[in-house]
Amino acid sequence: MAKTEPRTLAGFMELLPNEQILFEQMKQIIENTYKKFGFLPIDTPIVELSEVLLAKAGGETEKQIYRFEKGDTDLSLRFDLTVPLAKYVAKNYGNLSFPFRRYQIGKVYRGERMQKGRFREFYQCDIDIIGDEKLSLINDAELPSVIYTIFKEFGFDNFTIRINNRKLLNGLFSEIGQKDNATEILRIIDKIDKIGKEAVIEELKKMEISKDAIEKIISFIEIAGTSDEKLQKLEELQIQNDEFKLGLYELNEVVKYMRLFGIPEHNFNVDLTIARGLDYYTGTVYETFLNDYRELGSVCSGGRYENLAGYYTDKKLPGVGVSIGLTRLFYKLNELNLIKANKKSVSDVLIIPMCEDLSKPIELATKLRSEGINTEIYLNDKKLKAKFKYADKLEIPKVIIIGEDELKENKVKIKNMKTGEEELVDFDEKIHIKL
Amino acid sequence: MAKTEPRTLAGFMELLPNEQILFEQMKQIIENTYKKFGFLPIDTPIVELSEVLLAKAGGETEKQIYRFEKGDTDLSLRFDLTVPLAKYVAKNYGNLSFPFRRYQIGKVYRGERMQKGRFREFYQCDIDIIGDEKLSLINDAELPSVIYTIFKEFGFDNFTIRINNRKLLNGLFSEIGQKDNATEILRIIDKIDKIGKEAVIEELKKMEISKDAIEKIISFIEIAGTSDEKLQKLEELQIQNDEFKLGLYELNEVVKYMRLFGIPEHNFNVDLTIARGLDYYTGTVYETFLNDYRELGSVCSGGRYENLAGYYTDKKLPGVGVSIGLTRLFYKLNELNLIKANKKSVSDVLIIPMCEDLSKPIELATKLRSEGINTEIYLNDKKLKAKFKYADKLEIPKVIIIGEDELKENKVKIKNMKTGEEELVDFDEKIHIKL
Repeated sequence: MAKTEPRTLAGFMELLPNEQILFEQMKQIIENTYKKFGFLPIDTPIVELSEVLLAKAGGETEKQIYRFEKGDTDLSLRFDLTVPLAKYVAKNYGNLSFPFRRYQIGKVYRGERMQKGRFREFYQCDIDIIGDEKLSLINDAELPSVIYTIFKEFGFDNFTIRINNRKLLNGLFSEIGQKDNATEILRIIDKIDKIGKEAVIEELKKMEISKDAIEKIISFIEIAGTSDEKLQKLEELQIQNDEFKLGLYELNEVVKYMRLFGIPEHNFNVDLTIARGLDYYTGTVYETFLNDYRELGSVCSGGRYENLAGYYTDKKLPGVGVSIGLTRLFYKLNELNLIKANKKSVSDVLIIPMCEDLSKPIELATKLRSEGINTEIYLNDKKLKAKFKYADKLEIPKVIIIGEDELKENKVKIKNMKTGEEELVDFDEKIHIKL
Repeated sequence: MAKTEPRTLAGFMELLPNEQILFEQMKQIIENTYKKFGFLPIDTPIVELSEVLLAKAGGETEKQIYRFEKGDTDLSLRFDLTVPLAKYVAKNYGNLSFPFRRYQIGKVYRGERMQKGRFREFYQCDIDIIGDEKLSLINDAELPSVIYTIFKEFGFDNFTIRINNRKLLNGLFSEIGQKDNATEILRIIDKIDKIGKEAVIEELKKMEISKDAIEKIISFIEIAGTSDEKLQKLEELQIQNDEFKLGLYELNEVVKYMRLFGIPEHNFNVDLTIARGLDYYTGTVYETFLNDYRELGSVCSGGRYENLAGYYTDKKLPGVGVSIGLTRLFYKLNELNLIKANKKSVSDVLIIPMCEDLSKPIELATKLRSEGINTEIYLNDKKLKAKFKYADKLEIPKVIIIGEDELKENKVKIKNMKTGEEELVDFDEKIHIKL
């Protein structure tokens, strides 16, 4: 028979079991932490009506969409979890309690240009807190404490949650009469890490921004020091614009509460260069960096928005959210050898029967499982050596051998596969204690 | 601004948070049980090359596929988890240990004709055990014990795993010289529950099958009694066909081992009318019924196949697997009120601060979370009544109130929201013990 080559699309992650076990562990840490903070699960469809999903989209986003017709229905695969959340909250407004704290972990789709480490199908792990009309600023400080908890659980210590407030930038632009150019200026500022300060100044000059205004922009984004020093220097700029003053108040508050939430000083920092999405966020914005691996870019980002679902409803729904792009994070950490996929099995123990009658081995497997021990039983007719090879290859920590000799004495042999230690134990003893 | 109506596609399940919590609990029971039996996780893409995904498909299946082009690539959404498994095993053959025991829980897509309780996007929860060249029959008995464990965990007792062996039917057809008509005869037999015995006989007559042969078919599918009685009667048919004899041997063995795996007699039964897929299964086949709710149809089905991945590889990969269609199962159980979505929050406790300084409330929240207690803190500026209303609506079991009075005395007030009991506790006491 002619064979089809069994291949997987480029940009679609498909892991071997040992990597998948690790991926699931990371996903579980994220989900458990989200629950620990009381976020509720939702699970929206991957396929939605294009009209609904793209109500707001445009430009770059729309080009990347997986969009197609089925019958005469115009469908799209979701490209993030925020638009589905907006739809969900608008649709179910009357059935939700506000503030509505939800998490969603699921795959999203973007037909990006192929590049190593870029994925077209990837997991996003989102939390958002949505208020009805109003949402206290303290929520903006709670989300970083969720991020902090997760990255600590991942085993990282040297990471920084960078925080800024979009009102500062917007206020500054108003102050220097460049409000209409805000988007373009932000785009240029965003490149400072890549192209350097002088190149940024050159680009700003090309926009015919006055020398004075450029100086103000540069002195703003060059403010350095600790979080407190930066906040102090922002104060000293003496900018009278109302939006700027509100932004400064908000940033002060959020920093104060982040400390109350127990985030250590070395794990967060005010960073005035962070702008994030150009038209979406309206207040607090976050990015998270592993400091030893800056090349990863931000591993968890988000911010505050004034109105989640304006395209669907007249209700004013302010919110704040963050998202972890788990697929890319996993890929990068794995590539850098920062995580090790060294668990090749989920089993705690493999039972190897070397006897005709399988009653006892199966009975033991059932007993161990009922005690919460992940137990596999080797059911195929192979030589002892082959059975051990299976345990070896999967690195199952313990093996229980039950042969005719052991059966006669009503015993089992427990072997620790790491140390090689063997022990004969009575079948009726509490074998799980020995494991 | 003109609003887009926030709607979800028909046939795509989207649950409210309380229902979603319950759905996740059921999914977790399935996943934990799969792990307890040592099955390894895999996660294949939802989008695949049509050429790969449809290598084997045809007819009805192909019509239901969500298939589309992106650029000039012909793509499809997966319609089950078996074809992706076949691709995965063929592709990664050299990196897997056999028998390869894998689980996969994920969404699949079928553009079925819309009907109440039918879904176009739904979760399948699959386990399969794949052998390299060979796979012991005992595996066929282990899978029902996984199903048994899951449905017991769901809280059901009155369910039956029905089991049959396709070789019996195939052998019988050979014996009566109707091998070439097997598919058509199976299709007719499958309808016996719906159309009755006489109508089945009529249809068989139309196929010009001899009276004698029809009698043999009917006496075969009418064999009644306990599992052992049926096995005995099959023996007594004295059919000499080799395939039939092998099927009878296999069924006897699987029943014997199902008992060893501890499945009680009332939870399984030999059922000679079960055929399942017409060209896929080659040995053991299963269906599972909730006996009080036969109208649900089979809630977990599967069987043994001779060769998993013949379309992709020359390796012979026999396997056995079962699948739970969780979305449909959840929908039906919910509709029948057999499950109750009565958990509206994942939080164990809500902290309500009624004080200016939030240091203590936030400190307590962080402490409780670190002790594994899902803790939410009400961060928005509302009256006490509104804060309690939130706890009430979400039915959070305990509330901790921290007001100025409590703060002064370094105490907190714990309220049990079910009983209304209140208790003043020292802030530094082990509050989690009181929860």
